[in-house]
Amino acid sequence: MNLKLRTIFKTEGQVLIILGISMLLPFVTALAYGETASAKAFAYVALPCSFLGFLMMRFINFSEKPLRLRDGFFIVAVSWLLAAFIGSLPMLIDHSIPHFFDSFFEMCSGFTTTGATVLDDVESMPRAVLMWRAFSHWLGGMGILVFAIALLPSLGISGQEIAQAETPGPVLSKISPKMADTARTLYLLYITFTAAETLLLLLGGMSFFDAITHSFGTVGTGGFGNYNDSIAHFDSAFIDFVITFFMIVSGVNFNLYFLFLKDGKLSFFKDQECRLYLIIFALFSVIIAASLMISNTFDGALHSLRYAAFTVASILTTTGFATTDFGSWPAFCIMLLFTLFFIGGCSSSTAGGVKVIRVLVMLKMIRRSIALKLHPNALIRIRVDRKTLSTDVVQSICAFVFLYVAFFFFISICISLDDYDMLTNLSAAASCIGNIGPGLSAVGPANTFSLFSDGSKFILSLSMVAGRLELFTLLMMLSGRFWNPNE
Amino acid sequence: MNLKLRTIFKTEGQVLIILGISMLLPFVTALAYGETASAKAFAYVALPCSFLGFLMMRFINFSEKPLRLRDGFFIVAVSWLLAAFIGSLPMLIDHSIPHFFDSFFEMCSGFTTTGATVLDDVESMPRAVLMWRAFSHWLGGMGILVFAIALLPSLGISGQEIAQAETPGPVLSKISPKMADTARTLYLLYITFTAAETLLLLLGGMSFFDAITHSFGTVGTGGFGNYNDSIAHFDSAFIDFVITFFMIVSGVNFNLYFLFLKDGKLSFFKDQECRLYLIIFALFSVIIAASLMISNTFDGALHSLRYAAFTVASILTTTGFATTDFGSWPAFCIMLLFTLFFIGGCSSSTAGGVKVIRVLVMLKMIRRSIALKLHPNALIRIRVDRKTLSTDVVQSICAFVFLYVAFFFFISICISLDDYDMLTNLSAAASCIGNIGPGLSAVGPANTFSLFSDGSKFILSLSMVAGRLELFTLLMMLSGRFWNPNE
Repeated sequence: MNLKLRTIFKTEGQVLIILGISMLLPFVTALAYGETASAKAFAYVALPCSFLGFLMMRFINFSEKPLRLRDGFFIVAVSWLLAAFIGSLPMLIDHSIPHFFDSFFEMCSGFTTTGATVLDDVESMPRAVLMWRAFSHWLGGMGILVFAIALLPSLGISGQEIAQAETPGPVLSKISPKMADTARTLYLLYITFTAAETLLLLLGGMSFFDAITHSFGTVGTGGFGNYNDSIAHFDSAFIDFVITFFMIVSGVNFNLYFLFLKDGKLSFFKDQECRLYLIIFALFSVIIAASLMISNTFDGALHSLRYAAFTVASILTTTGFATTDFGSWPAFCIMLLFTLFFIGGCSSSTAGGVKVIRVLVMLKMIRRSIALKLHPNALIRIRVDRKTLSTDVVQSICAFVFLYVAFFFFISICISLDDYDMLTNLSAAASCIGNIGPGLSAVGPANTFSLFSDGSKFILSLSMVAGRLELFTLLMMLSGRFWNPNE
Repeated sequence: MNLKLRTIFKTEGQVLIILGISMLLPFVTALAYGETASAKAFAYVALPCSFLGFLMMRFINFSEKPLRLRDGFFIVAVSWLLAAFIGSLPMLIDHSIPHFFDSFFEMCSGFTTTGATVLDDVESMPRAVLMWRAFSHWLGGMGILVFAIALLPSLGISGQEIAQAETPGPVLSKISPKMADTARTLYLLYITFTAAETLLLLLGGMSFFDAITHSFGTVGTGGFGNYNDSIAHFDSAFIDFVITFFMIVSGVNFNLYFLFLKDGKLSFFKDQECRLYLIIFALFSVIIAASLMISNTFDGALHSLRYAAFTVASILTTTGFATTDFGSWPAFCIMLLFTLFFIGGCSSSTAGGVKVIRVLVMLKMIRRSIALKLHPNALIRIRVDRKTLSTDVVQSICAFVFLYVAFFFFISICISLDDYDMLTNLSAAASCIGNIGPGLSAVGPANTFSLFSDGSKFILSLSMVAGRLELFTLLMMLSGRFWNPNE
């Protein structure tokens, strides 16, 4: 074992404390709605969890040696699995979700901002549990660990090691040498978005409870709802519009907001990734709306566009809310949506998936390759935003995409042992790895993941975490090199 | 227009002559079986086709200027489309396949060695047509144009330009400076394999006609059969074994046979690509056989292995024969087979698909990337068979895979306008681009592609040609750069 165990324990102690404190919210919710069993359950978990965390932080001597990259990867992987495990305990205790693999699935889905659920009747859940599910999206959205960036420097650890293992998407540029400052600004932004959306949803007629939980789910690009028919329950064009808008906002690279706050420059359409992201959103929305109109799935252009734009935003940003059962749309629309399953939001956003920046680089590589076929000796570089990408960055993006595809096939094969149809397997795997939420066929928006066996639920739970951590972080633990002390 | 039109015309003239001569075989078949209408139809096409080809070769002055790469790409793309077009005319004339899009689909499928069919009752076809379909596999297998390599030097064109556009798979090493000599050896090998298989199939109880046509289909990794239930018609373990063996043999890099003939060294298991190919075949066969046995799809281990190995070989080598309706196998088996849809045979074989060498490089890139995450400054090269791959080769392999995936989604989306289920669309696109043959669901081995609209049939026809020519060759024609005389 060649890991810095002491530092790892200290950091996990911090994670436990954050988890314990976070459970105050569902605890208070339980009290407010008189759900005694749930209040007790959250207290039973939060108190020992915080206390253990306090002991781990307080009484383990800090090792002076600097962390190596593998320590960072290990910390991140363990933290996410720990959060999902601890987070799933209250529901086991108050029997709201009585089976471990269900509860663990639900919390993996929560923290990874996936939004896939195994609850066939979510409306029968205690309010405290609904709040906890939604809040886990919000916590997960910006990363439990990145959360700690503002605190970590006090421990003598540069957050860089950890951020590297967790950052959603390849970082092509550093925007600030002081990561802690950046992180604080981003959290303020994150809170502002949440508050703004809550306010607008209240205006749209939602109750305060619904408004805040759905805002958590939107800004974290999670997708857990409080109703069996998700957002369709409200049946309000205004609410659909507000959520569509904030889903798209949350799928944008947060550094662009940071730059806007710093320089006052609106660079959203100058940024090549963000531009492609917005173009994909607009293009797919319009094409699907047209198809829905022609096939008479909805009446009129506006109505079609409302449902098309919401669904495209929901899948592209990997949120996963639904305003209709898009599984029953024409095959052409479903095929377009399935394509979106593999794209995802922008890098450094709360969205999952392959990420638009990688799609952009792939498209540029195809274009470059065509040019090279005609002029084999030409020197053509891959540039994004006027910066040339190094061969290493390009190859690492390629390797990520290959791993993504290989992992997708692997998970699909594993869960196909349950003998459901192919589309169920393929879409469930794609949805979980991409942190989207609903799939198609038997796991479509009108259904849940409850049909799967415990084994498949567990595999899908792990694949959500693997996807959230951009695959390498979790899968690296399976490599012999990682555990080899001589490396 | 900046293409060398004269040379192009001259070369296409040659293609026409080869096509005309090739039609002698179905013509003779028609005479032998007394199919007058078909005999006339083939003669009506073969004679003017050869005559026009002769005129084009004889009376166009050869331009002295050397060919540019784009001329090579253009020649190859036009030749394949021309072959499919001319090849489809006899069936239109004798009314055996009365609709153009059906006939064109069938011949694209033939020449590209795909084996997908739109004929719901292939047993009602004239023998001449069955022979022509099978022979088109055989011709396509080694490439209509590579065929001409032995002749082209006499025209002053180095075959290299053309081979580059058509070679199945990235060429990592040149085995002989004299391409024409190599080509001749490979054809001899190709003919030997065909003869050997024909002999064995005769021993297995097939009629001579069935033996030769199925050998054409196997060695060319095509997959057209003469019976509605493909190879299941014969219901013979011996025939299944012989065809399985020759499918696997035909999916191996032919350069390895060439090296064997030259040096007498058996390097099949030393060659990393071939090793992985054989491992994939063995592993998938055993796992699927085990699953078939456990699920009681077949009785006993040997029986299960027979069907599993045949089906795995058929899809891995992109042949497409069937001995059973694998679409009704357990979901786990189908999911494993669907994975094989994206692998394909070895480079420089008659097989299609992504090719095992690219899968190998992708796996090595993933491994390299994990190592780089742990040691960001390490210098790790991608090596295949002890040779380091240049960055250009690696990036061109990546670009190919991305284009393959993008094209797969694009074709799936296009044909989904017909509103069949997702699995039909996804598998039909994967099958046609990978030159496999059958798909799943409504285009499974028990069905045909006849259900698609004319538009979809045409798109799938073109995607077969695009896939056969490794995408870039055909898609390049759509790029503005290709037609720009200043480039």
